[in-house]
Amino acid sequence: MRTIAFVFEYDGTDFLGWQMQATGRTVQSVVEGALNTLLQEDLRVTAAGRTDTGVHAVGQVAHFTTDSVLSCDRIKGGLNGLLPQDVSVRSVQEVSEGFHARFSAVERQYRYRILLRPSALRRRFAWCVAYRLDAVALRLACAPLAGLHDFTSFCQAAASQGGALCEIRRLEWTEDEDELRLDIAANRFLHHMVRTIVGTAIEVGRGRWDAERIREMLEAKDRRLAGPTAPAHGLCLTRVGYPEEYGIQ
Amino acid sequence: MRTIAFVFEYDGTDFLGWQMQATGRTVQSVVEGALNTLLQEDLRVTAAGRTDTGVHAVGQVAHFTTDSVLSCDRIKGGLNGLLPQDVSVRSVQEVSEGFHARFSAVERQYRYRILLRPSALRRRFAWCVAYRLDAVALRLACAPLAGLHDFTSFCQAAASQGGALCEIRRLEWTEDEDELRLDIAANRFLHHMVRTIVGTAIEVGRGRWDAERIREMLEAKDRRLAGPTAPAHGLCLTRVGYPEEYGIQ
Repeated sequence: MRTIAFVFEYDGTDFLGWQMQATGRTVQSVVEGALNTLLQEDLRVTAAGRTDTGVHAVGQVAHFTTDSVLSCDRIKGGLNGLLPQDVSVRSVQEVSEGFHARFSAVERQYRYRILLRPSALRRRFAWCVAYRLDAVALRLACAPLAGLHDFTSFCQAAASQGGALCEIRRLEWTEDEDELRLDIAANRFLHHMVRTIVGTAIEVGRGRWDAERIREMLEAKDRRLAGPTAPAHGLCLTRVGYPEEYGIQ
Repeated sequence: MRTIAFVFEYDGTDFLGWQMQATGRTVQSVVEGALNTLLQEDLRVTAAGRTDTGVHAVGQVAHFTTDSVLSCDRIKGGLNGLLPQDVSVRSVQEVSEGFHARFSAVERQYRYRILLRPSALRRRFAWCVAYRLDAVALRLACAPLAGLHDFTSFCQAAASQGGALCEIRRLEWTEDEDELRLDIAANRFLHHMVRTIVGTAIEVGRGRWDAERIREMLEAKDRRLAGPTAPAHGLCLTRVGYPEEYGIQ
């Protein structure tokens, strides 16, 4: 048996997220469909992050095991030929047996894009907000979140497997003329965590909340205190990090 | 009567180009529909460039005349509220009576994007080519086109109004990891001219034609000698230039 890992990209607009469901189009069902057609097997694919409905990815990673002897180049070409246009494979490589796309991952990175004016070309990949936002306030609001914390207040109601401790290693707001972007990396993220951070930061950025409140929120460990969840379509999984020995790129 | 100019953006994917037609969804029909609803008039809108089916714009400019006293800010807000998501207005301003979006324009700028690998997120706005391209060869191929020339060889069969003389003022290929972009500016462009330049340059970039052939092509003034027309969806009208006195931005 070979273990094959691949890095891929999808436009989440027309998907009910990553994970297979009884009905509805999911990235997993489309990817497994293409792979099983290509390899004539009945295999299952495991992804690093189970993105929600509408969330995009440019650097999602998944793996599967197969008896096929098809080269990685052929698998890549075959998949890109069979997949619908809203999923594309960037690289395919054989990895050591112990590799697991989800459990071997040591870091995830997301980008959230906020549009400060309507944009016909960027509307599918960025959340357009109607109010003025102060980038300085956004940075101030998010500063207390960097590092290792219990993120219960920034997580969808049900507690996640493995508790709510996450270590945020990068948290950077950049601004263009008409766009604000949050790049955020952590060892792990809880359900809806990035979107709740964005929704909360925006309450500060538009001047409704004081930045100090974020620190209190974090300490309170109570989801009811956080801001609204920002919409899915502004979010994109940009990269999954693995120990170097796996050589995933 | 006031003359109002506006700068706007559209995702050309679901439009049969700019110009109103007997049937089918065009940008002009959608924009005029929104404006006439907003202003309760029956006005016509004139654009700087009549983009083809599938071509995008981030900096298209149009004008109309109206008896309305609505402020430019209100027109902008009203239009963005009424327009479908694939059209968005960037700015609206009153201009002097003599302004004409098409005839006052002194420069047009386009960008053509080429993807060197399939990309789910960029597929709507870039042409994905399956072969290797040499950026150096692309630059060599296009160098003879800069300046004032008769572009008959790079124009759709029927000769345009005003002959085939165009002055290309900027012609720049830039490359990213997996994308090549042509930025091209001229006083005017003939029908399909940018797409024919791209289609022809690519024959050189992939090594099928010699760069020298472009110069011969230009001199021959014969469309049959040029390469294929590159697909519409890679093309975007990025900017229209006007004399400074109009203050369009």
